Amino acid sequence: MLAIIAGQGDLPKLIKDRTKGPSLVVALQGFAPNDIDVDLNFRLENLGALLIELSRAGVRDVCFAGAVRRTVIDPAQIDDLTKPLIPKLTEALLGGDDGALRAIFAIFEDAGFNVTAAHELIPDLLPPVGCQTKRKPDQDIDDEVRRASEVLNMVGHADIGQSCAVHRGQMLAIEGVFGTDWMLESLKVRPDSGGGIFFKAPKPGQDRRGDLPVISSQTVAKAADAGLDGIVIEEGGVMVLDMSNAIKEADKRNIFLWVKRS
Amino acid sequence: MLAIIAGQGDLPKLIKDRTKGPSLVVALQGFAPNDIDVDLNFRLENLGALLIELSRAGVRDVCFAGAVRRTVIDPAQIDDLTKPLIPKLTEALLGGDDGALRAIFAIFEDAGFNVTAAHELIPDLLPPVGCQTKRKPDQDIDDEVRRASEVLNMVGHADIGQSCAVHRGQMLAIEGVFGTDWMLESLKVRPDSGGGIFFKAPKPGQDRRGDLPVISSQTVAKAADAGLDGIVIEEGGVMVLDMSNAIKEADKRNIFLWVKRS
Repeated sequence: MLAIIAGQGDLPKLIKDRTKGPSLVVALQGFAPNDIDVDLNFRLENLGALLIELSRAGVRDVCFAGAVRRTVIDPAQIDDLTKPLIPKLTEALLGGDDGALRAIFAIFEDAGFNVTAAHELIPDLLPPVGCQTKRKPDQDIDDEVRRASEVLNMVGHADIGQSCAVHRGQMLAIEGVFGTDWMLESLKVRPDSGGGIFFKAPKPGQDRRGDLPVISSQTVAKAADAGLDGIVIEEGGVMVLDMSNAIKEADKRNIFLWVKRS
Repeated sequence: MLAIIAGQGDLPKLIKDRTKGPSLVVALQGFAPNDIDVDLNFRLENLGALLIELSRAGVRDVCFAGAVRRTVIDPAQIDDLTKPLIPKLTEALLGGDDGALRAIFAIFEDAGFNVTAAHELIPDLLPPVGCQTKRKPDQDIDDEVRRASEVLNMVGHADIGQSCAVHRGQMLAIEGVFGTDWMLESLKVRPDSGGGIFFKAPKPGQDRRGDLPVISSQTVAKAADAGLDGIVIEEGGVMVLDMSNAIKEADKRNIFLWVKRS
Protein backbone atom coordinates (compact mmCIF):
# COMPACT_ATOMS: atom_id res chain seq x y z
CA MET A 1 0.00 0.00 0.00
CA LEU A 2 0.96 3.59 -0.56
CA ALA A 3 1.19 6.14 2.25
CA ILE A 4 0.92 9.77 1.22
CA ILE A 5 3.03 11.74 3.70
CA ALA A 6 1.04 14.90 3.28
CA GLY A 7 1.75 18.55 3.83
CA GLN A 8 -0.29 21.61 2.96
CA GLY A 9 -1.84 22.33 -0.42
CA ASP A 10 -3.73 20.48 -3.13
CA LEU A 11 -1.12 17.92 -4.15
CA PRO A 12 -1.97 15.22 -1.54
CA LYS A 13 -5.61 15.09 -2.65
CA LEU A 14 -4.57 14.93 -6.27
CA ILE A 15 -2.34 11.93 -5.56
CA LYS A 16 -5.06 10.24 -3.50
CA ASP A 17 -7.57 10.72 -6.34
CA ARG A 18 -5.27 9.74 -9.16
CA THR A 19 -3.53 6.62 -7.82
CA LYS A 20 -5.17 3.23 -8.08
CA GLY A 21 -5.74 1.08 -5.05
CA PRO A 22 -6.01 2.06 -1.41
CA SER A 23 -3.72 4.61 0.14
CA LEU A 24 -3.21 6.04 3.60
CA VAL A 25 -3.07 9.81 4.13
CA VAL A 26 -0.60 10.64 6.86
CA ALA A 27 -0.17 14.28 7.86
CA LEU A 28 2.45 16.07 9.91
CA GLN A 29 0.56 17.83 12.71
CA GLY A 30 -0.01 21.47 11.87
CA PHE A 31 0.25 21.06 8.11
CA ALA A 32 -3.06 19.54 7.08
CA PRO A 33 -3.61 19.01 3.36
CA ASN A 34 -6.57 20.58 1.53
CA ASP A 35 -9.87 18.79 0.98
CA ILE A 36 -9.06 15.25 2.07
CA ASP A 37 -9.47 13.23 5.22
CA VAL A 38 -6.31 12.42 7.10
CA ASP A 39 -5.99 8.81 8.26
CA LEU A 40 -3.10 9.37 10.63
CA ASN A 41 -1.68 12.51 12.20
CA PHE A 42 1.85 12.37 13.51
CA ARG A 43 4.45 14.51 15.23
CA LEU A 44 8.16 14.19 14.59
CA GLU A 45 8.55 13.15 18.23
CA ASN A 46 6.60 9.99 17.39
CA LEU A 47 8.08 9.22 14.00
CA GLY A 48 9.46 5.88 15.23
CA ALA A 49 5.98 4.74 16.26
CA LEU A 50 4.57 5.94 12.96
CA LEU A 51 7.08 3.89 10.95
CA ILE A 52 6.01 0.74 12.77
CA GLU A 53 2.32 1.56 12.37
CA LEU A 54 2.75 2.11 8.63
CA SER A 55 4.64 -1.14 8.28
CA ARG A 56 1.92 -3.04 10.18
CA ALA A 57 -0.73 -1.45 7.97
CA GLY A 58 0.99 -2.97 4.93
CA VAL A 59 2.54 0.21 3.58
CA ARG A 60 5.47 -0.41 1.23
CA ASP A 61 5.66 2.85 -0.72
CA VAL A 62 5.65 6.38 0.67
CA CYS A 63 5.18 9.58 -1.32
CA PHE A 64 5.97 12.96 0.18
CA ALA A 65 3.60 15.61 -1.10
CA GLY A 66 2.70 19.10 -0.02
CA ALA A 67 4.38 21.88 1.91
CA VAL A 68 5.68 21.67 5.45
CA ARG A 69 7.88 24.03 7.37
CA ARG A 70 10.51 23.06 9.87
CA THR A 71 9.07 22.29 13.29
CA VAL A 72 10.71 22.32 16.68
CA ILE A 73 11.14 18.97 18.44
CA ASP A 74 10.00 18.87 22.06
CA PRO A 75 12.43 16.51 23.86
CA ALA A 76 9.82 15.66 26.51
CA GLN A 77 7.48 14.27 23.83
CA ILE A 78 9.94 11.90 22.15
CA ASP A 79 8.75 8.31 22.45
CA ASP A 80 11.04 5.31 22.91
CA LEU A 81 10.63 4.13 19.34
CA THR A 82 11.75 7.53 18.05
CA LYS A 83 14.80 7.96 20.29
CA PRO A 84 17.13 5.99 17.96
CA LEU A 85 16.10 8.30 15.11
CA ILE A 86 16.93 11.51 16.96
CA PRO A 87 20.50 11.96 15.67
CA LYS A 88 19.28 11.75 12.07
CA LEU A 89 16.23 13.89 12.76
CA THR A 90 18.37 16.56 14.39
CA GLU A 91 20.69 16.51 11.41
CA ALA A 92 17.67 16.89 9.15
CA LEU A 93 16.27 19.86 11.03
CA LEU A 94 19.60 21.68 11.10
CA GLY A 95 20.42 21.17 7.43
CA GLY A 96 19.14 23.16 4.49
CA ASP A 97 15.74 22.26 3.06
CA ASP A 98 17.19 19.80 0.63
CA GLY A 99 19.47 18.25 3.21
CA ALA A 100 16.50 17.93 5.54
CA LEU A 101 14.53 16.10 2.89
CA ARG A 102 17.34 13.67 2.13
CA ALA A 103 17.74 12.85 5.81
CA ILE A 104 14.00 12.21 6.22
CA PHE A 105 13.98 10.02 3.10
CA ALA A 106 16.89 8.03 4.53
CA ILE A 107 14.96 7.41 7.77
CA PHE A 108 12.02 5.97 5.80
CA GLU A 109 14.31 3.91 3.57
CA ASP A 110 16.21 2.49 6.54
CA ALA A 111 12.84 1.42 7.89
CA GLY A 112 12.23 -0.56 4.71
CA PHE A 113 9.98 1.80 2.74
CA ASN A 114 10.37 2.77 -0.87
CA VAL A 115 10.30 6.54 -1.38
CA THR A 116 8.48 7.40 -4.57
CA ALA A 117 7.93 10.83 -6.10
CA ALA A 118 4.51 12.31 -6.89
CA HIS A 119 5.48 12.61 -10.54
CA GLU A 120 6.49 8.94 -10.65
CA LEU A 121 2.95 8.05 -9.56
CA ILE A 122 1.32 10.66 -11.82
CA PRO A 123 3.65 11.39 -14.74
CA ASP A 124 1.43 14.08 -16.26
CA LEU A 125 2.24 16.35 -13.30
CA LEU A 126 5.33 17.16 -15.35
CA PRO A 127 4.13 18.90 -18.52
CA PRO A 128 5.93 18.36 -21.84
CA VAL A 129 8.35 20.85 -23.35
CA GLY A 130 6.73 23.70 -25.25
CA CYS A 131 4.34 26.61 -25.03
CA GLN A 132 0.65 25.71 -25.27
CA THR A 133 -0.68 29.16 -24.36
CA LYS A 134 -1.89 31.62 -27.01
CA ARG A 135 0.71 34.17 -26.01
CA LYS A 136 4.28 33.09 -26.73
CA PRO A 137 7.53 34.23 -25.13
CA ASP A 138 9.24 37.27 -26.67
CA GLN A 139 12.49 37.05 -28.56
CA ASP A 140 14.56 38.25 -25.62
CA ILE A 141 13.28 35.42 -23.44
CA ASP A 142 16.61 33.58 -23.58
CA ASP A 143 18.42 36.46 -21.90
CA GLU A 144 15.77 36.71 -19.21
CA VAL A 145 15.84 32.99 -18.54
CA ARG A 146 19.64 32.98 -18.45
CA ARG A 147 19.62 35.76 -15.87
CA ALA A 148 16.91 34.15 -13.76
CA SER A 149 18.64 30.81 -13.90
CA GLU A 150 22.01 32.32 -12.97
CA VAL A 151 20.52 33.97 -9.90
CA LEU A 152 18.55 30.91 -8.77
CA ASN A 153 21.63 28.75 -9.14
CA MET A 154 23.55 31.16 -7.01
CA VAL A 155 21.01 31.47 -4.21
CA GLY A 156 20.22 27.77 -4.49
CA HIS A 157 23.60 27.07 -2.97
CA ALA A 158 22.45 29.05 0.05
CA ASP A 159 19.31 26.88 0.01
CA ILE A 160 17.01 29.79 -0.81
CA GLY A 161 13.75 29.77 -2.79
CA GLN A 162 13.10 28.11 -6.07
CA SER A 163 11.70 31.03 -8.00
CA CYS A 164 12.33 34.60 -9.01
CA ALA A 165 10.97 37.36 -11.22
CA VAL A 166 13.20 39.05 -13.77
CA HIS A 167 12.69 41.87 -16.24
CA ARG A 168 15.32 42.92 -18.79
CA GLY A 169 18.16 41.39 -16.83
CA GLN A 170 17.07 43.06 -13.61
CA MET A 171 15.97 41.08 -10.58
CA LEU A 172 12.48 42.11 -9.47
CA ALA A 173 12.22 39.66 -6.59
CA ILE A 174 13.62 36.39 -5.28
CA GLU A 175 11.47 33.91 -3.39
CA GLY A 176 12.30 33.84 0.30
CA VAL A 177 10.85 32.00 3.28
CA PHE A 178 7.33 33.36 2.65
CA GLY A 179 7.15 31.48 -0.64
CA THR A 180 6.04 32.04 -4.20
CA ASP A 181 2.57 33.42 -3.56
CA TRP A 182 3.84 36.09 -1.19
CA MET A 183 6.58 37.11 -3.60
CA LEU A 184 4.11 37.47 -6.46
CA GLU A 185 1.68 39.36 -4.25
CA SER A 186 4.37 41.82 -3.22
CA LEU A 187 4.90 42.57 -6.91
CA LYS A 188 1.29 43.69 -7.27
CA VAL A 189 2.52 47.10 -6.10
CA ARG A 190 5.59 47.43 -8.27
CA PRO A 191 6.88 50.91 -9.01
CA ASP A 192 7.37 50.35 -12.75
CA SER A 193 5.00 49.70 -15.60
CA GLY A 194 5.22 45.91 -15.51
CA GLY A 195 6.75 43.23 -17.68
CA GLY A 196 9.13 40.36 -17.08
CA ILE A 197 8.93 36.69 -16.32
CA PHE A 198 8.29 34.44 -13.36
CA PHE A 199 10.85 31.64 -13.39
CA LYS A 200 10.71 28.50 -11.29
CA ALA A 201 13.15 25.59 -11.21
CA PRO A 202 14.46 22.98 -8.79
CA LYS A 203 17.51 23.84 -6.72
CA PRO A 204 20.83 22.70 -8.17
CA GLY A 205 21.43 19.08 -7.16
CA GLN A 206 18.01 18.76 -5.54
CA ASP A 207 16.73 15.25 -4.72
CA ARG A 208 13.84 15.13 -7.18
CA ARG A 209 11.85 12.50 -5.29
CA GLY A 210 10.34 15.16 -3.07
CA ASP A 211 9.67 18.85 -2.82
CA LEU A 212 9.82 19.48 -6.55
CA PRO A 213 8.51 22.98 -7.12
CA VAL A 214 4.81 23.19 -7.95
CA ILE A 215 2.69 25.72 -9.79
CA SER A 216 -1.05 25.85 -10.39
CA SER A 217 -3.61 28.02 -12.11
CA GLN A 218 -3.51 30.16 -8.96
CA THR A 219 0.19 30.83 -9.57
CA VAL A 220 -0.70 31.84 -13.12
CA ALA A 221 -3.29 34.30 -11.83
CA LYS A 222 -0.87 35.78 -9.34
CA ALA A 223 1.85 36.14 -11.96
CA ALA A 224 -0.63 38.04 -14.13
CA ASP A 225 -1.64 40.25 -11.19
CA ALA A 226 2.06 40.99 -10.71
CA GLY A 227 2.18 42.48 -14.20
CA LEU A 228 4.46 39.78 -15.55
CA ASP A 229 4.40 38.70 -19.19
CA GLY A 230 4.68 35.01 -18.55
CA ILE A 231 5.91 31.99 -16.65
CA VAL A 232 8.90 29.83 -17.50
CA ILE A 233 9.43 26.46 -15.86
CA GLU A 234 12.00 23.79 -16.44
CA GLU A 235 11.12 20.50 -18.16
CA GLY A 236 10.97 17.68 -15.63
CA GLY A 237 11.66 20.00 -12.75
CA VAL A 238 8.40 21.73 -11.89
CA MET A 239 5.01 20.09 -11.38
CA VAL A 240 1.85 21.75 -12.69
CA LEU A 241 -1.16 20.74 -10.63
CA ASP A 242 -3.72 21.05 -13.40
CA MET A 243 -2.09 21.92 -16.69
CA SER A 244 -5.26 22.45 -18.73
CA ASN A 245 -6.63 24.81 -16.09
CA ALA A 246 -3.32 26.63 -15.88
CA ILE A 247 -3.31 27.14 -19.65
CA LYS A 248 -6.91 28.33 -19.56
CA GLU A 249 -6.08 30.86 -16.86
CA ALA A 250 -2.97 32.03 -18.74
CA ASP A 251 -4.98 32.53 -21.94
CA LYS A 252 -7.64 34.44 -20.02
CA ARG A 253 -4.99 36.76 -18.55
CA ASN A 254 -2.92 36.93 -21.74
CA ILE A 255 0.32 35.61 -20.28
CA PHE A 256 2.44 32.74 -21.53
CA LEU A 257 3.39 29.51 -19.83
CA TRP A 258 6.49 27.99 -21.31
CA VAL A 259 8.00 24.65 -20.39
CA LYS A 260 11.62 25.04 -21.36
CA ARG A 261 13.95 22.19 -22.30
CA SER A 262 16.28 21.71 -19.33
CA MET B 1 36.32 73.40 -7.59
CA LEU B 2 34.13 70.40 -6.76
CA ALA B 3 31.37 69.16 -9.04
CA ILE B 4 28.69 67.07 -7.40
CA ILE B 5 27.47 64.61 -10.04
CA ALA B 6 24.06 64.27 -8.52
CA GLY B 7 21.38 61.65 -8.66
CA GLN B 8 18.16 61.31 -6.69
CA GLY B 9 17.83 61.60 -2.94
CA ASP B 10 19.14 63.77 -0.12
CA LEU B 11 22.85 63.04 -0.40
CA PRO B 12 23.72 65.72 -3.02
CA LYS B 13 22.24 68.52 -0.88
CA LEU B 14 24.04 67.22 2.17
CA ILE B 15 27.37 67.33 0.33
CA LYS B 16 26.62 70.80 -1.04
CA ASP B 17 25.81 72.06 2.47
CA ARG B 18 28.66 70.36 4.25
CA THR B 19 31.63 71.04 1.95
CA LYS B 20 33.52 74.33 2.14
CA GLY B 21 33.99 76.52 -0.89
CA PRO B 22 31.92 76.70 -4.05
CA SER B 23 30.64 73.63 -5.81
CA LEU B 24 28.69 72.90 -8.95
CA VAL B 25 25.64 70.66 -8.88
CA VAL B 26 25.43 68.64 -12.07
CA ALA B 27 22.47 66.31 -12.54
CA LEU B 28 21.79 63.50 -14.96
CA GLN B 29 18.54 64.39 -16.69
CA GLY B 30 15.61 62.56 -15.14
CA PHE B 31 17.26 62.00 -11.77
CA ALA B 32 17.02 65.37 -10.04
CA PRO B 33 18.33 65.54 -6.46
CA ASN B 34 16.10 66.66 -3.59
CA ASP B 35 15.93 70.26 -2.36
CA ILE B 36 18.80 71.88 -4.22
CA ASP B 37 19.20 73.88 -7.37
CA VAL B 38 20.92 72.14 -10.24
CA ASP B 39 23.58 74.21 -12.01
CA LEU B 40 23.91 71.95 -15.02
CA ASN B 41 21.71 69.23 -16.41
CA PHE B 42 23.25 66.72 -18.75
CA ARG B 43 22.40 63.67 -20.79
CA LEU B 44 24.79 60.81 -21.40
CA GLU B 45 24.68 61.67 -25.11
CA ASN B 46 26.42 64.96 -24.24
CA LEU B 47 28.87 63.71 -21.66
CA GLY B 48 31.87 64.79 -23.80
CA ALA B 49 30.61 68.37 -23.89
CA LEU B 50 29.95 68.28 -20.15
CA LEU B 51 33.51 67.18 -19.38
CA ILE B 52 34.89 70.18 -21.28
CA GLU B 53 32.41 72.54 -19.65
CA LEU B 54 33.37 71.31 -16.18
CA SER B 55 37.04 71.67 -16.96
CA ARG B 56 36.52 75.23 -18.21
CA ALA B 57 34.56 76.07 -15.07
CA GLY B 58 37.63 75.13 -13.01
CA VAL B 59 36.35 71.79 -11.71
CA ARG B 60 39.13 69.47 -10.51
CA ASP B 61 37.24 67.10 -8.19
CA VAL B 62 34.04 65.23 -8.90
CA CYS B 63 31.89 63.44 -6.37
CA PHE B 64 29.15 61.02 -7.45
CA ALA B 65 26.20 61.14 -5.08
CA GLY B 66 22.63 59.96 -5.25
CA ALA B 67 20.74 57.31 -7.09
CA VAL B 68 20.47 56.93 -10.86
CA ARG B 69 19.20 54.10 -12.94
CA ARG B 70 20.56 52.96 -16.25
CA THR B 71 19.32 55.10 -19.13
CA VAL B 72 19.08 54.32 -22.80
CA ILE B 73 21.39 56.23 -25.14
CA ASP B 74 19.74 57.76 -28.19
CA PRO B 75 22.31 57.51 -31.01
CA ALA B 76 20.78 60.51 -32.83
CA GLN B 77 21.48 62.74 -29.83
CA ILE B 78 25.17 61.92 -29.42
CA ASP B 79 27.30 65.05 -29.92
CA ASP B 80 30.73 65.06 -31.57
CA LEU B 81 32.57 65.51 -28.27
CA THR B 82 30.87 62.44 -26.86
CA LYS B 83 31.45 60.12 -29.85
CA PRO B 84 34.95 59.06 -28.70
CA LEU B 85 33.48 58.07 -25.33
CA ILE B 86 30.80 55.80 -26.77
CA PRO B 87 32.73 52.50 -26.59
CA LYS B 88 33.39 53.05 -22.88
CA LEU B 89 29.86 54.30 -22.24
CA THR B 90 28.37 51.29 -23.96
CA GLU B 91 30.59 49.02 -21.89
CA ALA B 92 29.40 50.84 -18.79
CA LEU B 93 25.73 50.48 -19.64
CA LEU B 94 26.06 46.79 -20.42
CA GLY B 95 28.04 45.89 -17.32
CA GLY B 96 26.73 45.25 -13.85
CA ASP B 97 26.09 48.24 -11.59
CA ASP B 98 29.56 48.17 -10.16
CA GLY B 99 31.17 47.68 -13.55
CA ALA B 100 29.11 50.60 -14.87
CA LEU B 101 30.35 52.83 -12.08
CA ARG B 102 33.99 51.93 -12.64
CA ALA B 103 33.67 52.65 -16.36
CA ILE B 104 32.07 56.06 -15.68
CA PHE B 105 34.77 56.87 -13.12
CA ALA B 106 37.42 55.98 -15.70
CA ILE B 107 35.89 58.36 -18.23
CA PHE B 108 36.09 61.23 -15.73
CA GLU B 109 39.63 60.30 -14.69
CA ASP B 110 40.81 60.07 -18.29
CA ALA B 111 39.46 63.60 -18.72
CA GLY B 112 41.72 64.76 -15.87
CA PHE B 113 39.27 64.82 -12.95
CA ASN B 114 39.85 63.40 -9.51
CA VAL B 115 37.00 61.14 -8.38
CA THR B 116 36.36 61.57 -4.67
CA ALA B 117 33.84 59.76 -2.49
CA ALA B 118 31.10 61.48 -0.48
CA HIS B 119 32.53 59.96 2.70
CA GLU B 120 35.97 61.31 1.89
CA LEU B 121 34.47 64.80 1.82
CA ILE B 122 32.25 64.21 4.87
CA PRO B 123 33.80 61.47 7.01
CA ASP B 124 30.97 61.42 9.56
CA LEU B 125 28.69 59.89 6.91
CA LEU B 126 30.32 56.65 8.03
CA PRO B 127 29.28 56.09 11.65
CA PRO B 128 31.68 54.46 14.13
CA VAL B 129 31.44 50.82 15.20
CA GLY B 130 28.94 50.13 17.94
CA CYS B 131 25.28 50.33 18.92
CA GLN B 132 24.10 53.71 20.13
CA THR B 133 20.40 52.89 20.22
CA LYS B 134 18.62 51.97 23.47
CA ARG B 135 17.67 48.57 22.15
CA LYS B 136 20.66 46.28 21.57
CA PRO B 137 20.99 43.27 19.26
CA ASP B 138 19.98 39.88 20.68
CA GLN B 139 22.45 37.16 21.42
CA ASP B 140 21.71 35.26 18.23
CA ILE B 141 22.60 38.27 16.11
CA ASP B 142 25.87 36.73 14.94
CA ASP B 143 24.04 33.84 13.29
CA GLU B 144 21.61 36.21 11.60
CA VAL B 145 24.39 38.46 10.36
CA ARG B 146 26.39 35.46 9.11
CA ARG B 147 23.39 34.24 7.15
CA ALA B 148 22.58 37.68 5.73
CA SER B 149 26.19 38.27 4.81
CA GLU B 150 26.50 34.86 3.15
CA VAL B 151 23.47 35.53 0.98
CA LEU B 152 24.49 39.07 0.03
CA ASN B 153 27.95 37.86 -0.91
CA MET B 154 26.41 35.26 -3.10
CA VAL B 155 23.96 37.51 -4.91
CA GLY B 156 26.55 40.28 -5.01
CA HIS B 157 28.45 38.25 -7.57
CA ALA B 158 25.34 38.48 -9.74
CA ASP B 159 25.38 42.22 -9.08
CA ILE B 160 22.12 42.19 -7.15
CA GLY B 161 21.04 44.47 -4.29
CA GLN B 162 22.99 45.45 -1.27
CA SER B 163 20.52 44.54 1.41
CA CYS B 164 18.34 41.76 2.72
CA ALA B 165 16.10 40.85 5.63
CA VAL B 166 16.73 37.68 7.63
CA HIS B 167 14.98 36.05 10.56
CA ARG B 168 16.34 32.95 12.33
CA GLY B 169 18.47 31.92 9.37
CA GLN B 170 15.57 32.29 6.93
CA MET B 171 15.64 34.81 4.12
CA LEU B 172 12.62 37.11 4.29
CA ALA B 173 13.55 39.24 1.28
CA ILE B 174 16.48 40.27 -0.89
CA GLU B 175 16.72 43.72 -2.40
CA GLY B 176 16.11 43.70 -6.14
CA VAL B 177 15.88 46.40 -8.77
CA PHE B 178 13.12 48.26 -6.90
CA GLY B 179 15.50 49.03 -4.06
CA THR B 180 15.56 49.02 -0.29
CA ASP B 181 12.41 51.03 0.39
CA TRP B 182 10.27 48.82 -1.79
CA MET B 183 11.66 45.68 -0.21
CA LEU B 184 10.92 46.95 3.27
CA GLU B 185 7.45 48.11 2.24
CA SER B 186 6.64 44.69 0.83
CA LEU B 187 7.46 43.24 4.26
CA LYS B 188 4.75 45.37 5.87
CA VAL B 189 2.36 42.56 4.92
CA ARG B 190 4.39 39.60 6.08
CA PRO B 191 2.54 36.41 6.94
CA ASP B 192 4.40 35.77 10.20
CA SER B 193 4.51 37.58 13.52
CA GLY B 194 7.59 39.66 12.76
CA GLY B 195 11.19 39.72 13.91
CA GLY B 196 14.54 39.63 12.19
CA ILE B 197 17.11 42.07 10.94
CA PHE B 198 17.64 44.37 8.02
CA PHE B 199 21.23 44.00 6.83
CA LYS B 200 22.99 46.31 4.40
CA ALA B 201 26.54 46.13 3.13
CA PRO B 202 28.57 47.00 0.03
CA LYS B 203 28.90 44.41 -2.70
CA PRO B 204 32.01 42.23 -2.54
CA GLY B 205 34.85 44.06 -4.28
CA GLN B 206 32.76 47.22 -4.80
CA ASP B 207 34.61 50.42 -5.74
CA ARG B 208 33.93 52.39 -2.58
CA ARG B 209 34.33 55.79 -4.20
CA GLY B 210 30.76 55.76 -5.36
CA ASP B 211 27.42 54.16 -4.78
CA LEU B 212 28.16 53.08 -1.23
CA PRO B 213 24.88 51.97 0.27
CA VAL B 214 23.01 54.65 2.21
CA ILE B 215 20.44 54.53 4.99
CA SER B 216 18.54 57.32 6.71
CA SER B 217 15.98 57.79 9.45
CA GLN B 218 13.39 56.94 6.79
CA THR B 219 15.02 53.52 6.33
CA VAL B 220 14.82 53.06 10.10
CA ALA B 221 11.11 53.87 10.08
CA LYS B 222 10.46 51.45 7.22
CA ALA B 223 12.44 48.67 8.92
CA ALA B 224 10.28 49.18 12.02
CA ASP B 225 7.10 49.13 9.90
CA ALA B 226 8.34 45.83 8.45
CA GLY B 227 8.28 44.30 11.93
CA LEU B 228 12.05 43.89 12.08
CA ASP B 229 13.98 44.00 15.35
CA GLY B 230 16.84 46.09 14.08
CA ILE B 231 19.32 47.19 11.45
CA VAL B 232 22.87 45.98 10.98
CA ILE B 233 25.31 47.82 8.74
CA GLU B 234 28.97 47.28 8.08
CA GLU B 235 31.59 49.66 9.43
CA GLY B 236 33.00 51.83 6.66
CA GLY B 237 30.64 50.36 4.12
CA VAL B 238 27.27 52.06 4.58
CA MET B 239 26.60 55.79 4.87
CA VAL B 240 24.02 57.10 7.32
CA LEU B 241 22.59 60.39 6.14
CA ASP B 242 21.84 61.83 9.58
CA MET B 243 23.02 59.49 12.31
CA SER B 244 21.53 61.36 15.28
CA ASN B 245 18.15 61.45 13.59
CA ALA B 246 18.40 57.80 12.67
CA ILE B 247 19.15 56.90 16.29
CA LYS B 248 16.26 59.05 17.50
CA GLU B 249 13.88 57.30 15.09
CA ALA B 250 15.20 53.88 16.11
CA ASP B 251 14.69 54.67 19.80
CA LYS B 252 11.20 55.94 19.11
CA ARG B 253 10.33 52.70 17.29
CA ASN B 254 12.26 50.45 19.68
CA ILE B 255 14.57 48.90 17.13
CA PHE B 256 18.35 48.73 17.20
CA LEU B 257 20.90 50.17 14.81
CA TRP B 258 24.20 48.38 15.00
CA VAL B 259 27.37 49.32 13.15
CA LYS B 260 29.28 46.08 13.02
CA ARG B 261 33.05 45.79 12.73
CA SER B 262 33.76 44.70 9.16
